[in-house]
Amino acid sequence: MDDLAAPAPASVGFTYTVAASQTLGLAVILVVGAWMGVYRGGFAWESPELQFNAHPLCMIVGMVFLQGDALLVYRIFRNESKRSTKILHGLLHALALVIALVGLIAVFEYHKKKSFPNMYSLHSWCGIAAFSFYLLQWLLGLVFFLCPGVSFSVRSRYKPQHVFFGVFLLVLSIATALLGILELLLFKIRDSYSSLVPEGVLANVLGLLLVAFGAALAYILTRDGWRRTPLAEEQALSMDFKTLTGGESPAGSP
Amino acid sequence: MDDLAAPAPASVGFTYTVAASQTLGLAVILVVGAWMGVYRGGFAWESPELQFNAHPLCMIVGMVFLQGDALLVYRIFRNESKRSTKILHGLLHALALVIALVGLIAVFEYHKKKSFPNMYSLHSWCGIAAFSFYLLQWLLGLVFFLCPGVSFSVRSRYKPQHVFFGVFLLVLSIATALLGILELLLFKIRDSYSSLVPEGVLANVLGLLLVAFGAALAYILTRDGWRRTPLAEEQALSMDFKTLTGGESPAGSP
Repeated sequence: MDDLAAPAPASVGFTYTVAASQTLGLAVILVVGAWMGVYRGGFAWESPELQFNAHPLCMIVGMVFLQGDALLVYRIFRNESKRSTKILHGLLHALALVIALVGLIAVFEYHKKKSFPNMYSLHSWCGIAAFSFYLLQWLLGLVFFLCPGVSFSVRSRYKPQHVFFGVFLLVLSIATALLGILELLLFKIRDSYSSLVPEGVLANVLGLLLVAFGAALAYILTRDGWRRTPLAEEQALSMDFKTLTGGESPAGSP
Repeated sequence: MDDLAAPAPASVGFTYTVAASQTLGLAVILVVGAWMGVYRGGFAWESPELQFNAHPLCMIVGMVFLQGDALLVYRIFRNESKRSTKILHGLLHALALVIALVGLIAVFEYHKKKSFPNMYSLHSWCGIAAFSFYLLQWLLGLVFFLCPGVSFSVRSRYKPQHVFFGVFLLVLSIATALLGILELLLFKIRDSYSSLVPEGVLANVLGLLLVAFGAALAYILTRDGWRRTPLAEEQALSMDFKTLTGGESPAGSP
């Protein structure tokens, strides 16, 4: 039991990859902020043009950075209790949803004020699908993993689906962000984009940074050796449950 | 040994998911063909406008459908020998690369004939990155897994990277295809796209089908229970090697 009680140290590869992912995530937020601030006039909720600028920033902070980091909490806080980590995971996703909702309101209000049509482009179709399924995934996660009445057996059957769709929705959100970048560039600087003007290059770099952030997160999440292992007390609890229930273990839930 | 010698039957869930993925893949090819054929004038290598139309078709057949199916061969042909499966995997990727190269020549020749600039858009940046890294991944795969001089230990260390980057490149290729769809729509039907004209809706549906094809493949490739298990003769060979080399096993290579 002494061996089990010692916290599992994070490997050097894991630490560097997490550091790289966070650097990329912060770079993504800085670059989208700089793009909107320097080339698109900044942010102001009351002005239609500047209200739109909250859309890219909020969607990237919510649907990419916070959604992505919420997936990492089980890997990063591997020595905290399962319950605390689970609550942090749910709260980060809730914050992501609220910030993304502000971003959605910004674009729909902007369209309304300017009498622009809604929901015709591939960006909007992918975006509304990503947001709706993300909300559904959050609600299902709440029911399956935080409601006390759900059995461990049901939880452990749903868990692999929850994990797969979590990574899928992050990837879909990043693909939607790439579509949004290209759509905005072709609406705003269509004629000068092909001359590699600074705004076009900055926005393309933002796209590549988003791809790199997604790749780093997907890499961390798919390494078998970097998965969270149950803590000593969870191991002991798991053994008690195995004895009591004939195989079902609470350590199997995310 | 009798148990090991019996071919492992595929589960019903696996069979249905593979059938769904192939239906989606064929639907993607039919829809891109219909889009180019019905709305963009069809295909002809000598005419600049129609030469361009080979670009979306070839890139989707090569960089999405064939690249994706090449990843599935270890799962689908689980009862064939490792060597045959490996050669099929390499050949499908080689065919994908050749078809994608034809698609790249089509768009560069079209740009040259029309004096359009190259390599400025996010679609082109992501596309050239995906194609270059795909070629590199193919060459590394050839060296590590088909050259006889490489040790099993080196192969088994490289294998998880090869598998991760294989799925990453498929996802990047699909994201690039989505960018290409949106770019073409905003170049060709910018004014009518917002009225949900049939061409715009068809192309958006193509985008959603591409996302669904990618999701089905990623789901199949990430199910632990659907991984290829070594055949009886590979198990036996593996045991011999373990005895001889103290742990290195030829069954560990992809």
